[in-house]
Amino acid sequence: MKKFINNPENFVDEMLEGIYLAHPEVTHVGEDLHCYVRTTPVKGKVAIVTGGGSGHLPLFLGYVGDNMLDGAGVGGVFQSPSSEQVLEVTRYVDQGAGVLYLYGNYSGDLMNFDMAGELADLEGIETATVVGRDDVASSVVGEEHKRRGVAGIVFLYKVAGAAASAMKPLAEVVRLTEKASARTRTIGVALSPCIVPEVGKPSFEIGADEMEIGMGIHGEPGITRKKLTPADALVDEMMERVLAEQSYDTEKDVAVLINGLGATPLEELYVIYRRTAQVLEKAGANIRHVFIGEYATSMEMAGASISVLQLDDELEPLIAVGANTPFFKHIAR
Amino acid sequence: MKKFINNPENFVDEMLEGIYLAHPEVTHVGEDLHCYVRTTPVKGKVAIVTGGGSGHLPLFLGYVGDNMLDGAGVGGVFQSPSSEQVLEVTRYVDQGAGVLYLYGNYSGDLMNFDMAGELADLEGIETATVVGRDDVASSVVGEEHKRRGVAGIVFLYKVAGAAASAMKPLAEVVRLTEKASARTRTIGVALSPCIVPEVGKPSFEIGADEMEIGMGIHGEPGITRKKLTPADALVDEMMERVLAEQSYDTEKDVAVLINGLGATPLEELYVIYRRTAQVLEKAGANIRHVFIGEYATSMEMAGASISVLQLDDELEPLIAVGANTPFFKHIAR
Repeated sequence: MKKFINNPENFVDEMLEGIYLAHPEVTHVGEDLHCYVRTTPVKGKVAIVTGGGSGHLPLFLGYVGDNMLDGAGVGGVFQSPSSEQVLEVTRYVDQGAGVLYLYGNYSGDLMNFDMAGELADLEGIETATVVGRDDVASSVVGEEHKRRGVAGIVFLYKVAGAAASAMKPLAEVVRLTEKASARTRTIGVALSPCIVPEVGKPSFEIGADEMEIGMGIHGEPGITRKKLTPADALVDEMMERVLAEQSYDTEKDVAVLINGLGATPLEELYVIYRRTAQVLEKAGANIRHVFIGEYATSMEMAGASISVLQLDDELEPLIAVGANTPFFKHIAR
Repeated sequence: MKKFINNPENFVDEMLEGIYLAHPEVTHVGEDLHCYVRTTPVKGKVAIVTGGGSGHLPLFLGYVGDNMLDGAGVGGVFQSPSSEQVLEVTRYVDQGAGVLYLYGNYSGDLMNFDMAGELADLEGIETATVVGRDDVASSVVGEEHKRRGVAGIVFLYKVAGAAASAMKPLAEVVRLTEKASARTRTIGVALSPCIVPEVGKPSFEIGADEMEIGMGIHGEPGITRKKLTPADALVDEMMERVLAEQSYDTEKDVAVLINGLGATPLEELYVIYRRTAQVLEKAGANIRHVFIGEYATSMEMAGASISVLQLDDELEPLIAVGANTPFFKHIAR
C-alpha cells in the first residue's frame, strides 16, 4: 500500500487536522474533528448539511463555504458519519430557518441522517432531506429511488446553496434541489481499484486492459466490464445511457461535469469532455456551464464520470452563482 | 496503458480541443492549437508568456488568465514548444509594454524561448526572461542556476501576474519575479511512474514498497531511493532540505504549496500539509498563504512536492491578489 500516511487508523483524523490547519474558514464542533462546519454562519438562512464517508475529497466537506453548504458530518473512509455527529453539526449550523440534509443515497447515511433529523425535531429544529441519486448505472428507469448518489450531487450543492443564500425558505430550497436532482444524470467508468488504508489491499481486481462502466465510487458493481476502448467510443457508449433519459428538444440548456475519480490525469478528462461536448451538441443540447476536474473521488481510483444537469430558467441562474469554499471556487462570469 | 485516449498521436491536440471547447476565455493563435492565449489582453500591461511540455496540467496553460499569465506555448507530452510557437504567442500577447518569459529551467525550453526572444527583438518586441529553478534536489547550493523548475513556479506566476496587472513596468516585474524565484524552494517525492502516451510504457521502474525523494516531474533521478516511510518521517526528511536553505529568524512569513503529482489523493496531501505546518511552525515560520492540490503534475504519477516561498513585505501582497483562470481561482480574503 503506497500511501502518504502514518498509522492507517489515524488517517482521517490527520487529514482533518491538516484541513483545519490550512483553512481557518472552517472548524469543528467541540472536540470532534468529524463535525465540520464553516465559521461564518448566516443569520436567518436555511442551513445545509451534507456528509458521508471520507476518501472522496473534495466530496463531502469540500463544498462547505460561501453560497454552498454550512456543515458536514465526516465518517471514516467509506463509512457514514454517526447520527450524533450529524446532530452536532445540525445544532451548530441551524440559524432558525431550518436545515436541509443533502447527501448521497446510501443506506448507512440515510439511517444516520434520518435519526439525526428525528432528534433535531425533538429539539425544535426543522429538517428536510434531499438525496442525490444521479448514477444511472445503479438502477433502471422506474426505480430511480434506488440509484446511488455520485458526482452529480455537486450540482445539487450548487443549486441548494445558491437558493439558501438568496434567503429562500426551506420548502423552496427543497423544491429547487429536488428539481435539480430529478434532472441530473451521471455515468461513470473505472479503470483501477483504490485501497482503503485500514484494509490495506485493493478494493477489487480488474484486468490490465479492462474497464468497468457504471462502477460506483466505492467499487460497487457496474453494468459491464470489458476491454478498454478508445476514449471517443467509450464516451459514446456512456452518453447513450444519459441520452436515453434526457431529451433536449424543448429545454436545451445543460450543465456538464466531467469528474476524475482520483488517478486519472486532467488531460484525459479534457479528452473525455471534447467528445461529450460533441455528443451533446449533436443531440441538440446547449452547454451553459462546464466543470472539469476532481469533484468526487475514490482516493487513487483511476476512472471518470460524466454528469449532465438539464437546466431550466429557474436552475440555470442558481448554477451560475459564484461560490467560495477552501476546495471549490466558482467565479460568476 | 490504461488511459482515456484515442490515437496517442492525437492526445495533446484532442486535450487542447477539449480545453478550447470548455473555456471560451482562452483561444489559440491562428490554426495552431499549441499557441494558447487569453482572449482579453490588457492594453499597456506587461504580457507574461510561459510554456513547456504537456502532461503537467494545470501547468502550464492553466495559469493563463486574469491577474496571472497571458499566453503559453504548449509542447507535446514532456516536449518543449517550438520557438515559432513561442514567437506566435509573443506577437499576439504583446501590448506594447514588453513580454516576460517565465518557465521552468529545462534546456529545450531555454533554447526555444531564447530563440523566440531574439526573433521578437528583431520585430521590436522587448522580452525578458525569468526561469523557475526551485527544485532543491536537482543541484547543490552554489549551483542553484542548474536546478530544475517544478511546482514552485506557481508562486512566480502569482507574483509576476499580480505585478504586471498592477501595471508595473517590465524591469520591475522581472525584479519581483526574480526575487520570488530566489526565495522559493521545492522538494518532491515520487511513488510511481507515469506513462507517456506515445511511449506506452512506464517512464521508470520503482519497487512496490519504494519511494524516490527528489525525483523530477519527468522522472529525472532524485537524491535517494528507499523504503516508503510513514508520512511524518518523510515530511521531516524532505523539509530538512528546505530548512537548510531558509531561516525564519527575521522574515517569518511564508507561502506553502503542497502539490500532488497526479495519482495521489487529496486526503494524503492534507496529511502531508499537517506535518509540514508543524515543521514550519517549529522552525519559527508563520504560514500566510496555503495552496494544496494538483498544481504541477506528471499525468498519473503518484507523489507529492512541498514548496515554500519565503515572503517579504513586497511579495506577500502579490501572493494575496485574487486570480481567475479556467484552472486556477484564487479569491483574495
